[in-house]
Amino acid sequence: MLLCDIGNSNANFLDDNKYFTLSIDQFLEFKNEQKIFYINVNEHLKEHLKNQKKFINLEPYFLFDTIYQGLGIDRIAACYTIEDGVVVDAGSAITIDIISNSIHLGGFILPGIANYKKIYSHISPRLKSEFNTQVSLDAFPQKTMDALSYGVFKGIYLLIKDAAQNKKLYFTGGDGQFLANYFDHAIYDKLLIFRGMKKIIKENPNLLY
Amino acid sequence: MLLCDIGNSNANFLDDNKYFTLSIDQFLEFKNEQKIFYINVNEHLKEHLKNQKKFINLEPYFLFDTIYQGLGIDRIAACYTIEDGVVVDAGSAITIDIISNSIHLGGFILPGIANYKKIYSHISPRLKSEFNTQVSLDAFPQKTMDALSYGVFKGIYLLIKDAAQNKKLYFTGGDGQFLANYFDHAIYDKLLIFRGMKKIIKENPNLLY
Repeated sequence: MLLCDIGNSNANFLDDNKYFTLSIDQFLEFKNEQKIFYINVNEHLKEHLKNQKKFINLEPYFLFDTIYQGLGIDRIAACYTIEDGVVVDAGSAITIDIISNSIHLGGFILPGIANYKKIYSHISPRLKSEFNTQVSLDAFPQKTMDALSYGVFKGIYLLIKDAAQNKKLYFTGGDGQFLANYFDHAIYDKLLIFRGMKKIIKENPNLLY
Repeated sequence: MLLCDIGNSNANFLDDNKYFTLSIDQFLEFKNEQKIFYINVNEHLKEHLKNQKKFINLEPYFLFDTIYQGLGIDRIAACYTIEDGVVVDAGSAITIDIISNSIHLGGFILPGIANYKKIYSHISPRLKSEFNTQVSLDAFPQKTMDALSYGVFKGIYLLIKDAAQNKKLYFTGGDGQFLANYFDHAIYDKLLIFRGMKKIIKENPNLLY
């Protein structure tokens, strides 16, 4: 079974248990004979995908209890297997969603880590810097690189901690592993979105035929 | 007495008690017969200012107790009149500096509010949105505009609260008044940087002649 999660920067695939990533340009060249079950949040690809016979959009099959208007299908899929907890998907944006008793209580959005770096460099050449991924969040920074890193990492940390209270934390996405390290007992699950997609297919077995 | 604080987007003036702002382009056209006491963090203007006879750079006169490497002169000036407290300068970047017994304990940097908006719109057209300046920080957001606003405003709020503990809070800069509203007993002082500059001139009265 071939699953595909299409974002703004990349398309991530799960081919049985093999995970791989294509850039959007590579994705547009991608040819395949198998059925591909996908979700997509990339507005530019919506029309293209409609015309691909092998591509099956799973979005209409998700039944998700939320009052959030316009919740992205990637966020729904990431939350879909979680009964209680906070789900953090850290990619080009960072989304944080709160689930209680399988009900979505709401969520919020931050820029992704690479995009923070980009914006700092646009504000001033003095703020163009790599991040110090080892920066202490327990001491005030004493140089620019640490000051920028602390602003980003401690800001993300405090927001997630505040949202989580005593809930379980689930991280996914390219920076998910890194952010999970700030928390005790956090779970990093690279395949969280694919688990949601698999659950949909299990709930709708006729999709396979 | 004419004071000028030059940043990356604007040059702010204090003419006795009259405050005005010029864009950097307007600033380059600005002609004046009086002495202008200035500080500048805009790398592009450093050479230009050196050749202006009427412009007196106050930067060499600041004696400031810090181990922070390369602390911007605007941050030093904003902190210069504060003995104990947290100084937040919210402009194109947001700088947060912590002072105790007239010693700078360190500080950190966030993107300015307008730059958060810019970066969201670059990540995805779905994240291009105005901010809801009235968004509640006590309830999880239920739509994109609130999710983006909460991420930015609550992130800034939690970072400042965490840094402040029980210290006094001083806000300045274009978004300083707005951010000060999130805190009880916060002080908004539009002229904080100019107060630091005036203190320097008082400490070095020969500069006036």
